[in-house]
Amino acid sequence: MSRFAEPPDPVFQALNSSISFDHRLAPYDIEQSRAHVRMLAGAGIVSSDDAATIERGLEAVGAELDGGLFELRADDEDIHMAIERRLTEIVGPVGGKLHTARSRNDQVATDVVMYVRHHARTARAALHALMRTLVALAERHEDWAMPGYTHLQRAQPVYLSHHLLAYFWKFRRDHLRFGFCLAASDELPLGAGALAGVNFDTDRHELARALGFGTVAENSIDAVSNRDFVLDYLAAAATAATHLSQLGAEIVLWSSQEFGFCEVSDAFASGSSIMPQKKNPDAAELLRSKAPRVAAHLIGLHGVIHGLPLTYNKDLQEDKERLFDASDTLELTLAAATGMLEGISFQRERMASAAADEFPAATDVADLLVGRGVPFREAHGVVAGLVRHALERGKQLSEVTAEELSELAPQLDAAYYALLEEGAWLESKRSEGGTALPRVREQLERAHAALVEASA
Amino acid sequence: MSRFAEPPDPVFQALNSSISFDHRLAPYDIEQSRAHVRMLAGAGIVSSDDAATIERGLEAVGAELDGGLFELRADDEDIHMAIERRLTEIVGPVGGKLHTARSRNDQVATDVVMYVRHHARTARAALHALMRTLVALAERHEDWAMPGYTHLQRAQPVYLSHHLLAYFWKFRRDHLRFGFCLAASDELPLGAGALAGVNFDTDRHELARALGFGTVAENSIDAVSNRDFVLDYLAAAATAATHLSQLGAEIVLWSSQEFGFCEVSDAFASGSSIMPQKKNPDAAELLRSKAPRVAAHLIGLHGVIHGLPLTYNKDLQEDKERLFDASDTLELTLAAATGMLEGISFQRERMASAAADEFPAATDVADLLVGRGVPFREAHGVVAGLVRHALERGKQLSEVTAEELSELAPQLDAAYYALLEEGAWLESKRSEGGTALPRVREQLERAHAALVEASA
Amino acid sequence: MSRFAEPPDPVFQALNSSISFDHRLAPYDIEQSRAHVRMLAGAGIVSSDDAATIERGLEAVGAELDGGLFELRADDEDIHMAIERRLTEIVGPVGGKLHTARSRNDQVATDVVMYVRHHARTARAALHALMRTLVALAERHEDWAMPGYTHLQRAQPVYLSHHLLAYFWKFRRDHLRFGFCLAASDELPLGAGALAGVNFDTDRHELARALGFGTVAENSIDAVSNRDFVLDYLAAAATAATHLSQLGAEIVLWSSQEFGFCEVSDAFASGSSIMPQKKNPDAAELLRSKAPRVAAHLIGLHGVIHGLPLTYNKDLQEDKERLFDASDTLELTLAAATGMLEGISFQRERMASAAADEFPAATDVADLLVGRGVPFREAHGVVAGLVRHALERGKQLSEVTAEELSELAPQLDAAYYALLEEGAWLESKRSEGGTALPRVREQLERAHAALVEASA
Amino acid sequence: MSRFAEPPDPVFQALNSSISFDHRLAPYDIEQSRAHVRMLAGAGIVSSDDAATIERGLEAVGAELDGGLFELRADDEDIHMAIERRLTEIVGPVGGKLHTARSRNDQVATDVVMYVRHHARTARAALHALMRTLVALAERHEDWAMPGYTHLQRAQPVYLSHHLLAYFWKFRRDHLRFGFCLAASDELPLGAGALAGVNFDTDRHELARALGFGTVAENSIDAVSNRDFVLDYLAAAATAATHLSQLGAEIVLWSSQEFGFCEVSDAFASGSSIMPQKKNPDAAELLRSKAPRVAAHLIGLHGVIHGLPLTYNKDLQEDKERLFDASDTLELTLAAATGMLEGISFQRERMASAAADEFPAATDVADLLVGRGVPFREAHGVVAGLVRHALERGKQLSEVTAEELSELAPQLDAAYYALLEEGAWLESKRSEGGTALPRVREQLERAHAALVEASA
Repeated sequence: MSRFAEPPDPVFQALNSSISFDHRLAPYDIEQSRAHVRMLAGAGIVSSDDAATIERGLEAVGAELDGGLFELRADDEDIHMAIERRLTEIVGPVGGKLHTARSRNDQVATDVVMYVRHHARTARAALHALMRTLVALAERHEDWAMPGYTHLQRAQPVYLSHHLLAYFWKFRRDHLRFGFCLAASDELPLGAGALAGVNFDTDRHELARALGFGTVAENSIDAVSNRDFVLDYLAAAATAATHLSQLGAEIVLWSSQEFGFCEVSDAFASGSSIMPQKKNPDAAELLRSKAPRVAAHLIGLHGVIHGLPLTYNKDLQEDKERLFDASDTLELTLAAATGMLEGISFQRERMASAAADEFPAATDVADLLVGRGVPFREAHGVVAGLVRHALERGKQLSEVTAEELSELAPQLDAAYYALLEEGAWLESKRSEGGTALPRVREQLERAHAALVEASA
Repeated sequence: MSRFAEPPDPVFQALNSSISFDHRLAPYDIEQSRAHVRMLAGAGIVSSDDAATIERGLEAVGAELDGGLFELRADDEDIHMAIERRLTEIVGPVGGKLHTARSRNDQVATDVVMYVRHHARTARAALHALMRTLVALAERHEDWAMPGYTHLQRAQPVYLSHHLLAYFWKFRRDHLRFGFCLAASDELPLGAGALAGVNFDTDRHELARALGFGTVAENSIDAVSNRDFVLDYLAAAATAATHLSQLGAEIVLWSSQEFGFCEVSDAFASGSSIMPQKKNPDAAELLRSKAPRVAAHLIGLHGVIHGLPLTYNKDLQEDKERLFDASDTLELTLAAATGMLEGISFQRERMASAAADEFPAATDVADLLVGRGVPFREAHGVVAGLVRHALERGKQLSEVTAEELSELAPQLDAAYYALLEEGAWLESKRSEGGTALPRVREQLERAHAALVEASA
Repeated sequence: MSRFAEPPDPVFQALNSSISFDHRLAPYDIEQSRAHVRMLAGAGIVSSDDAATIERGLEAVGAELDGGLFELRADDEDIHMAIERRLTEIVGPVGGKLHTARSRNDQVATDVVMYVRHHARTARAALHALMRTLVALAERHEDWAMPGYTHLQRAQPVYLSHHLLAYFWKFRRDHLRFGFCLAASDELPLGAGALAGVNFDTDRHELARALGFGTVAENSIDAVSNRDFVLDYLAAAATAATHLSQLGAEIVLWSSQEFGFCEVSDAFASGSSIMPQKKNPDAAELLRSKAPRVAAHLIGLHGVIHGLPLTYNKDLQEDKERLFDASDTLELTLAAATGMLEGISFQRERMASAAADEFPAATDVADLLVGRGVPFREAHGVVAGLVRHALERGKQLSEVTAEELSELAPQLDAAYYALLEEGAWLESKRSEGGTALPRVREQLERAHAALVEASA
Repeated sequence: MSRFAEPPDPVFQALNSSISFDHRLAPYDIEQSRAHVRMLAGAGIVSSDDAATIERGLEAVGAELDGGLFELRADDEDIHMAIERRLTEIVGPVGGKLHTARSRNDQVATDVVMYVRHHARTARAALHALMRTLVALAERHEDWAMPGYTHLQRAQPVYLSHHLLAYFWKFRRDHLRFGFCLAASDELPLGAGALAGVNFDTDRHELARALGFGTVAENSIDAVSNRDFVLDYLAAAATAATHLSQLGAEIVLWSSQEFGFCEVSDAFASGSSIMPQKKNPDAAELLRSKAPRVAAHLIGLHGVIHGLPLTYNKDLQEDKERLFDASDTLELTLAAATGMLEGISFQRERMASAAADEFPAATDVADLLVGRGVPFREAHGVVAGLVRHALERGKQLSEVTAEELSELAPQLDAAYYALLEEGAWLESKRSEGGTALPRVREQLERAHAALVEASA
């Protein structure tokens, strides 16, 4: 018997019901409930027989869920009620004992944090696969020259391996970020009850161990109001998605006829409904497009929690769809990035020819002057004048005559022309972390070490 | 001499110039440059004499900046150029050697990450102060009863100390979050040059040590394109601001005449321009109002980086104002929260009388039935019937007669009336993390331990 | 035959496919296609016979869709291809002529703008219903006094009708906003082809008429890249959702035991899984919770379009889920708000007793002084002193003795006590738009007029 | 005398004070106050003499403000108090009468809506200038061929004029959007008092006329809580900024050496601190970078208002900085876009050569088949086969031999080769709004008409 005299309005039911999405929590709910009832029996709060009956029932419900045989009923408001309803159908009224010393408030928080922890681990594995792919790709293209850009202007040549490894380190930070996410969600909410704790001396640490948590939430009010773990997951996912968007954007750019640096495999491209010649890098565009989606989920959840009084408020129900969509999006785009990179082919000639442009050597010419004692700023000015002179005459730098040179930059001589022979300045970037081949090779070693560490 | 034939358009200059905000990087820029020039001398790239001259010059510039004597010029595009310009005015052309083996790209990234690290530490200290204040406040109000709410409905009574400590644990997670921010920003970008490394075998590890970094960024392209540390700071700040907004919202609520649970001191309130009787909890409202601001900075920066090709693009200039405003906002609101809580007074009688409502005992009545073997769900239904019966007759639960009771809940007896004597059910929440006093005291001990840990 | 040698990767397919959500465009796609083929026949581009066959086929496909009989195939990438595939199954190869003089780019843009226009109209109708409910509610509670709040502090009493009508005008602006949305989406994209127009002299104005548009998009490149209409819809929806969140937040507040101003009907509330006495205003909480969701969709789409080169890019596919979820959310919350308000009951006594507090009269006392020639600022100061004096002594203003009065505010006399008789100051707010009853009645008349106008 | 016994805490003062930004409202505050006092005199609420004195005083304050002579005092909390304080210093206690029948709540709302309306007009003027520039640019490059892209793949050639005009129509919609912003903010809040109206029968319609509003806000509670006009401005600004970001992104792309389609003038570009050869399109990058900033302001303000109870809450103070920064940003970027486009030079040869690629003609080949009765889908398949055949052999389409053709596409003949003569397919896009020159010329006429209309 309910204290309510009136049935819910269908519009309210549609708004209030969460089962259309929270059914995804079912496996966590079953796992949680099994651990909970075992703990209740261990603490003598329910009898061992009842606990065994309930656990068998939960197993049966779980099997129905796994097998797609679980039937929802119109009045199943959420997955937690649906499971308990079905449990009671199977094992009888004793099923009602499962909810002893528990409230939906701590139950939901626990399901959600379990989901977060599972998917933080999934994200780490997917990031690891992508990182591995990037290392392999870098190794296959170790000494392929390409232009490095700033402001999308050719700036200094680099090796493709070096450029690819830049992404490696970004995704490795994402891996660390999901690691923090796991560390920061290591406290079990279950046992907080509705908000104040429960009337039983439950063994929460036992429960924590059973469910893979390091410890228990220290404060019941915090436990039921806390959604930091979702924010942490979304923040990590948003940053990873932003990195993926940069990778996607570069592949789109490089796939253009104008760049012509790479071609994605047919398996990751699509055609046009009207233009038969088109091969569109859709996968790369979609990688680019998804970051605002994940970031919007993050700010959306911040918005929900903003100004919300403690403890549980229905508003918190808004955490789930965002979280689910973010994890789906992230896992799919990580897999797509990995697959797309595995099948991509780079165009060595196009890249090399773009990298052969002499103007990027200008920094090195300036550094030549620095080596001769000219302060950098002054050297910069001298070379800028040379560049302008050459551009105005449609010349490459090496086509500037010795006469012109002696007038524009009297400190320069034959070393200038020597330097301008292609390639010299690629190997000159020999500082640690630079693009010179020996440095790239050191970097690859460290990347391998980081891979090993990340898989631990 | 520049390669440009035409001066910048004033509109472009206004759009392009960053000095109106990036002047805040000055102390980091000076510190960085001093370490840089020392390293250059150590590596034999500039002479010790030149280095000493430059360092003296930088000291002088720093003194001018500190003393408010530094004069900007209209064509100082950013603080880095302004400092170098002034340096050269002071020490002559040798100042131009400072920029050897460095580019504005790695220089800016380094200044910004130094700013982030400094302010992550500041945030930790401010969070620590707030946590300390919360513990002291909880200790002063250890056994003050108040209603705990779910859905803003009175649910179960709790102690005010327990409610205040819920915030303690939230802010402690924020403290950990800024800790991650420090760990994740421990790699020095300096030495990456424009994007590809530099033409000198610089000692980046020495530089890292000098500037308080644990190691160096592994990849020069990543180093100049990376702004993850700003995202990490903003994500941590947004979550802290969201927690502050919840605290602020509750103080606003509790300050209403209807709640009447607390009164902020005059020092943190304001009056009305038209209504002389008003005392408005402005500080609490402003705490509430700032979370969307910080969260917007976070999503805004995600937006800027989204789809941005590597390496440096001017768009990255958009990182600074957001970061500065976020750190200003966070530091000011943390200080205001601490100050406001130090002066707040709670109204013991109002809280106690609100907590004395008998209906929150309904869960305990249900648990009484559970103790007698009634499955929880069934017990819940029985008590819901009792509640509805009482509400319809305008009675408190203890006013239900024994006759009514035997009809509505035959399993209940005198224990029912005993339980309904005020207070019993506050102490009954004896599970770990619950509101029973012994549990709150355990919690306070752990809070003290966490304070010690956080100050390490 | 495709130009592709390799089938799509399943991961790519999962990422690329939009049919799981764009199936909702089906009715618009059918309507569009029918109009398109009629136009093609009219312009002599396909024969009348072929057109008739195709139209019959489209009718059949539409019937299958309406009847839930349409079967998707695994390789139906989007709803447009699925419909055309099914059409060709039904009518044979002639179905392929439907795509003459059309591209998926202009086709999708057209479906989406049709969806927007349909749902802008739906939103207007739902807003109208809510506005009607607010007017009826205001009329039923015309002269019920309640406190008006600023900073959540009681400020000046108002009539409940006046407070409810404040929402009326907010929703009426939302109604206007969706009106702009319709006006700004009045240009048909269809006929723009892939991006450059089509090779046929199609009659786009005829098509526009048939599909309910006022005119055609002037530029084919703009037409296929334009999603302003989605941004306009989302902006209007976000503002409406923000208004709903304010309404929801106030109902939550007023439903607390502390305020006790109203009670939502059982049909829009829910109970607790553990606390049988609870009646939670879930519907109101959900109204409050949804605004960040819609606003996040808006900023998310801005994020997708930000920096996107013209014309069509796959990223634009990200417009749909946001739009669909925003319209679902808005329509459901508008209906819930209307339903909830229809069944709400206000507590006259609680409101009146809260409004009887004398301190809100302080402004009127100040105005009494103003009427006697005291400058407002000075009057404000005098009354602030009186208030402080009374508060310190625990007195209401009317309990200040004549002696005290003559000392603190010598300009005041018997008129002071007369004014403080309850109620006077409610009717004193007689400026246009104020809360005095005659003004509220004028306002109700204007609200009725606005309702008539809005239903036109 | 204040009712407060304690002075404000400096931290609170720093948090609470708005004068560091709201000083920008000064001109509106002065204008509002002058109109207000004139109205008070007209309605007999203050004497004509007092009103004249106050108005003279306000004029003097305004002059001090304009001349930069106005001195702020440390305890000037906001600009409204500062102005009134200064007024009273100048004219004596009679200055205190200015605040009669007004509250800071309606005063602030009025200042802000006046700011919005002023800057909506400014935005319209700036958009008009940009639209004019685009038309002029389109006219200068009417028949310059370039590739049109979808998915950043060359798709179909278009005229540069057509591409530029696509932006024209986007900005024209922005112009309409700011028009709606003006229409929707046409109701004067002033006269609403603190929240309930005022104790005087003020003439609000007279005030509205004097301040350029069409009418008055109908409800005082709505008037002081309403910030829709800021949301409307920010929504319009965000969409305009998003359009500017697309324009900026394309200029960045086209300025790359790989595209080489355009070069921005030196006046809108910058160099590199380390690479003397660089010419970076900074202005275009900054156009690209600013959209997330404006969109973040929009969602940030939604966040502030979300769930906020009526009427005025301090949180609303958060509207101003966002609004000011958005208008500054928008006005500066619109001016920069206009200036940058005025000085840009396009590279006809580079564009033409990129447009000469034959593959974009594939659609036309398909349409040739359609003209011969082949259903479009079938034609698409045939041509896709042809394309794949050519690509695999490294041939252009016209290099496919007649023999190959008769095998792969027996329906094709000499017309195929005729069509492939360059240019034909540019003029074939002859549908309304298409890129064929006569259509572009029609479009230019309509653009001129739109310009005239927009300047009205």
